[in-house]
Amino acid sequence: MGKIGKPPPLGAAQGLQSRPDRELGGMAAGWKRGRFLKNMRIGLIGSAALLLTSHVVAQPQNALNLMPMPTSIQLGVGRLPVDRYFSVAVTGFRDATLERGIDRFVAELSRETGMFLKQKLVDSPSPTLLIHAVHGSESVQRLSEDESYELAISESGATLTAPSHLGILHGLQTFLQLVETTADGFSVPVVMVKDKPRFAWRGLLVDVGRHFIPLDVLKRNLDGMAAVKMNVLHLHLYDNEGFRVESKRFPRLQEAGSDGLYYKQDEIREFVAYAHDRGIRIVPEFEMPGHSRSLFAGYPELASGPGPYKVEPGGVDAVMDPTREETYKFIDKLFEEMAKLFPDDYFHIGGDEVNGGQWTANPKIQAFLHSHGMKTNQDLQAYFNQRLQKILNKHHKIMMGWDEVLHPDLPKTVVVQSWRGQQSLATAAQQGYSSLLSFGYYLDLMWPASQHYAVDPMSGAGASLNPEEKSRIIGGEACMWSEWVTAENIDSRIWPRNAAIAERLWSSPEVQDIESMYTRLDMLSRRLEWLGLTHKSSLVPGLYRMAGTNDIAALRTLADIVEPVKDYTRMNGLKTVWDFRAPLNRLVDVARPESDQARRLRDAVQTYIASGYRDKAAEAEIRTRLAAWRDNDRSLHPLLEQSFLLSELAPLSEDLSALAAAGLLALDYLDESTTSPNSWRAQQLALVERAKTPRANLVLMVVEPVRQLIEGSGGQTREP
Amino acid sequence: MGKIGKPPPLGAAQGLQSRPDRELGGMAAGWKRGRFLKNMRIGLIGSAALLLTSHVVAQPQNALNLMPMPTSIQLGVGRLPVDRYFSVAVTGFRDATLERGIDRFVAELSRETGMFLKQKLVDSPSPTLLIHAVHGSESVQRLSEDESYELAISESGATLTAPSHLGILHGLQTFLQLVETTADGFSVPVVMVKDKPRFAWRGLLVDVGRHFIPLDVLKRNLDGMAAVKMNVLHLHLYDNEGFRVESKRFPRLQEAGSDGLYYKQDEIREFVAYAHDRGIRIVPEFEMPGHSRSLFAGYPELASGPGPYKVEPGGVDAVMDPTREETYKFIDKLFEEMAKLFPDDYFHIGGDEVNGGQWTANPKIQAFLHSHGMKTNQDLQAYFNQRLQKILNKHHKIMMGWDEVLHPDLPKTVVVQSWRGQQSLATAAQQGYSSLLSFGYYLDLMWPASQHYAVDPMSGAGASLNPEEKSRIIGGEACMWSEWVTAENIDSRIWPRNAAIAERLWSSPEVQDIESMYTRLDMLSRRLEWLGLTHKSSLVPGLYRMAGTNDIAALRTLADIVEPVKDYTRMNGLKTVWDFRAPLNRLVDVARPESDQARRLRDAVQTYIASGYRDKAAEAEIRTRLAAWRDNDRSLHPLLEQSFLLSELAPLSEDLSALAAAGLLALDYLDESTTSPNSWRAQQLALVERAKTPRANLVLMVVEPVRQLIEGSGGQTREP
Repeated sequence: MGKIGKPPPLGAAQGLQSRPDRELGGMAAGWKRGRFLKNMRIGLIGSAALLLTSHVVAQPQNALNLMPMPTSIQLGVGRLPVDRYFSVAVTGFRDATLERGIDRFVAELSRETGMFLKQKLVDSPSPTLLIHAVHGSESVQRLSEDESYELAISESGATLTAPSHLGILHGLQTFLQLVETTADGFSVPVVMVKDKPRFAWRGLLVDVGRHFIPLDVLKRNLDGMAAVKMNVLHLHLYDNEGFRVESKRFPRLQEAGSDGLYYKQDEIREFVAYAHDRGIRIVPEFEMPGHSRSLFAGYPELASGPGPYKVEPGGVDAVMDPTREETYKFIDKLFEEMAKLFPDDYFHIGGDEVNGGQWTANPKIQAFLHSHGMKTNQDLQAYFNQRLQKILNKHHKIMMGWDEVLHPDLPKTVVVQSWRGQQSLATAAQQGYSSLLSFGYYLDLMWPASQHYAVDPMSGAGASLNPEEKSRIIGGEACMWSEWVTAENIDSRIWPRNAAIAERLWSSPEVQDIESMYTRLDMLSRRLEWLGLTHKSSLVPGLYRMAGTNDIAALRTLADIVEPVKDYTRMNGLKTVWDFRAPLNRLVDVARPESDQARRLRDAVQTYIASGYRDKAAEAEIRTRLAAWRDNDRSLHPLLEQSFLLSELAPLSEDLSALAAAGLLALDYLDESTTSPNSWRAQQLALVERAKTPRANLVLMVVEPVRQLIEGSGGQTREP
Repeated sequence: MGKIGKPPPLGAAQGLQSRPDRELGGMAAGWKRGRFLKNMRIGLIGSAALLLTSHVVAQPQNALNLMPMPTSIQLGVGRLPVDRYFSVAVTGFRDATLERGIDRFVAELSRETGMFLKQKLVDSPSPTLLIHAVHGSESVQRLSEDESYELAISESGATLTAPSHLGILHGLQTFLQLVETTADGFSVPVVMVKDKPRFAWRGLLVDVGRHFIPLDVLKRNLDGMAAVKMNVLHLHLYDNEGFRVESKRFPRLQEAGSDGLYYKQDEIREFVAYAHDRGIRIVPEFEMPGHSRSLFAGYPELASGPGPYKVEPGGVDAVMDPTREETYKFIDKLFEEMAKLFPDDYFHIGGDEVNGGQWTANPKIQAFLHSHGMKTNQDLQAYFNQRLQKILNKHHKIMMGWDEVLHPDLPKTVVVQSWRGQQSLATAAQQGYSSLLSFGYYLDLMWPASQHYAVDPMSGAGASLNPEEKSRIIGGEACMWSEWVTAENIDSRIWPRNAAIAERLWSSPEVQDIESMYTRLDMLSRRLEWLGLTHKSSLVPGLYRMAGTNDIAALRTLADIVEPVKDYTRMNGLKTVWDFRAPLNRLVDVARPESDQARRLRDAVQTYIASGYRDKAAEAEIRTRLAAWRDNDRSLHPLLEQSFLLSELAPLSEDLSALAAAGLLALDYLDESTTSPNSWRAQQLALVERAKTPRANLVLMVVEPVRQLIEGSGGQTREP
């Protein structure tokens, strides 16, 4: 079954001609200008172009919602139906991993369309989709595997070809994204996609130490990663607050070092296999010598200061003792065990934010330092890292560390992960280290997708590197630190913003258009829901919990126009020590990192101002939104008084309504071409200033657009 | 741990006095009149009553949202906080089943409040909740076990006492339903609840034959059942369209009899244990001699007519051959295997809708019938059933069958499940059979909750039974037949309506108030979402799929005011044979069986009419709704043209807007106290007539209220 002959040559699909990848430049330039349709035309040649021109213009919904954007797309004319007789056949290499990948694809297509598609491969000479992989998968996925693929869709069938099953998996995701609902049925466009990643390392870090994240939650996130072609899940397996993986050699690690929430070894093995099936590597992080208090709860002798140590809020920021040989014996045994459990070539040892206080305070450690010719605690950490590197070498692992590990004594085989800035990434590359970027990709900082999207591993300090140095930059990793994250809200912190980072790491650096990114992100975000991700659906239950009643419409209106405070504001604003056991059930915990409503208001106000306050459609949209907000506090206020989880929102709700009222008045002035009185403006701008202050760790996202309207009503910027 | 002394005597909780259950009559009568607060007062005695009176009246939100309504409630004064230090201790009997039940309770409380509660039992002398079970659970749950419990909550702590772990589980569900969000934190009211079920058999049937339902979907439904104190899941394990359980003795049952979607035996064992943990029995149904074509695909010799048989749409309605001894040998071996796999005492053999055609057409069968002194095919089925009963007896099972099995030759040990009417239930009870009701509880018929709620096993023909006969009515079962049901929409078909049936089977028959039922159903429906049930959340992805775009607001407006056609209208309206493989991805497949919006419109129109068209609040509500609908078609129409899944909705959308416009005009006439012109009314009533016709298998739920407004504007029913 499935051995039905060679696949058709690429580019032979009806109505298609191949073209070199470099043409992407023109396409991306088109996107940059936000004109998707135009670039589609640029991407075509000859008579097909003529056909397409009218076709696309007539049906603008045909713009392809692919994310990450492929290397090369040639859109043709016509469509391939995807109906209940959809079938898949395989030629070339075939194994169980590939078959499971195809099964998942068919199941996903079935779910998204609501059709009961056949789960089994057919032995048909003319399947809807013919798949041809040249090679099989490796039992342990390598960093440098070829992930490219080519997907050729004609009106009579599709062919997906790739050197390895990884490319097949990526191509299947592209196919899924191409499926559209049309007046004639589900279908995919006639198209030729040639695609390969820009960077080999496209990762997501999840911190499961500070708050435990169950494996079923991580699994659906693996599904999401596969959908956007990410290929590394980096597990920050513990931190001061909890040790999350079972050690059979040192069971007190999880027993004393956690609240009972940790992964059993069998579960890890099954999880690693789950990831492998999806073309994703699992890289474990065993953070040391800092951020490791949870280790000392069971093994206090590892620490540099006297115990006892407990996993509790506000405990000492303890550090390992790098001077005792017993420390290395312990690490050797632990790494031996964990190197087998996590089969990936790479093994992360953390190494960041080492508090030298314990080392300085310990005379024995200081004596060791001096007797070994070291001058600083940094030298001592470098010594420690060298020892770790030797241990990992023995266990056939490549060591990784955060950028603090950079030290002249560090072997060049170590991979450096840069979190403190793009400079350290460039420095590492210049010094000969393979390196990857996480600075700018911290999802816990609550940035908008556009802000992450603008960060490129090769920009900033990286831009001045020579080609050889640039080749050492192997990719990047989004980071989901979990101070304020639990199983309940983690999806909403990762998605959909993570997809913007995934595109940055996969697609050509010229793919930059923000508007196109957000359009495609919206479509993708909806598709991710079919994978069970709760990034959209978790909001409403959270609001119900806070409200304790069924009528949450007004609360939702407020929730949709606030965002959690950015960067480290929430942590810095704590009046007491951060308590990882405290409930995370406030609006800040469920509010979306990026408010769609705010973005739309901003866009409308920009359009309105750019039109010299003449664009009536934009004005109408602004008025509709502002009117709803103006009236919202009246509905919401009684509810806020009923719940201890909501009372802190009263000032926000009041300001939202007051700002909306001010904005509406400003529009009235602008409509009448009357300059607003200075005293009124001064009063309203005072309100704006007050409303800028975060309350309940939330930012009211209407402030800046309303300020612009108020300022505008002053006549200074108005056209005559 | 946990053995910290005897539980306090019931009724000793602060501020509470016990009272006999018979006082419920007064309470229920209060509810009947829809006056929840009043009955709360009726339920109290002495000084506590005086305190309560003012308390409850001052804070009407304190009405208890319990479902099913307990046998007896005494509400006291004050509240018990439920904060992050919430703890549970156990005295009395304790085993792993009970502990898992408590773990689930704490996890659920944790999820609902967003607090990280301790999962482990404490050894505290003053826990928040003290649990005392007298006996442990049986390894196989029996029909007649004592499920009662008493829950006493004071301001300083709660005590839950029950004869068995079943009562504890029920009491924990009651506790969860009592938790409220208040201005001071989460808390439960001071209350004494004494509770026990009215019927011992409170079931839900799920048909996994016609469409396969995965076990994880069934598991979350078990969680939902436990939340409403149901205790039997009846699995209709196969039908003509698919055989869904692995047989090791007869593997071609699942191999030839299914599309590969069936439960493995290990999975069934784990599933049965999952149900047992939740106090739910799993009753298997092996339907015969009819509805069993999927058996004949692998074993055609069992059938009464010549094969071959395939699992495909439109196949013959084949029936087993009851004349061959080989048939009984097969059944004996199969039942022996399945009796072990399903440990419950009861075993269902179906027996409904036997098509005698194959028997009549087979001369050998007719010869057998006559040579054995039988007259009709019914006699032959009775002979077959007697044989089955003997086989099941050998395997220590009690036989159950649908009401067609009733026949003078049927042994009285058989349990009869009545689906054809309440008469057959009464007849069975009169003839000495234990019986349970499913007539009136068919969830696939798309009835409103109130219609199911009105069906009582003891009403209709049952009302005239004598006490002994009545005692034979052991309960009822909601039925989820799956012709139009898949894993995707099954939750929305079962929930929340199933909870109304659960209340009918648990609570006193006097609990009848519809308004109270819907209020509590709304609260429960929201709580069920924490269990992972998708009855609410599945609508939006379904709409997105149909729309193929992100803007579904107008589509949702239409979806919220239609209901699927009722009874068997959809099946009867098929122009071709029913195809169980056809996609279920239309609006009828995701639209809610009962439209909340429609109920609210009806209520508002009723209020408005009852006020002599003077109630301005009701009128305003009607106007708001009608205005939104009037304008909806304009927004929706372009979308409907873009998708083949939506185009069939155009007439519905047009009629909705036209009806809303007519309703608004009628209101204008009523406002102005002007009689609407006869010609206008005639025209509008013609529209009403047209709009009554279902389109796309959907009913527009505004028709009747708008008709009332139009009629009303004619002045006939108006006050002077």
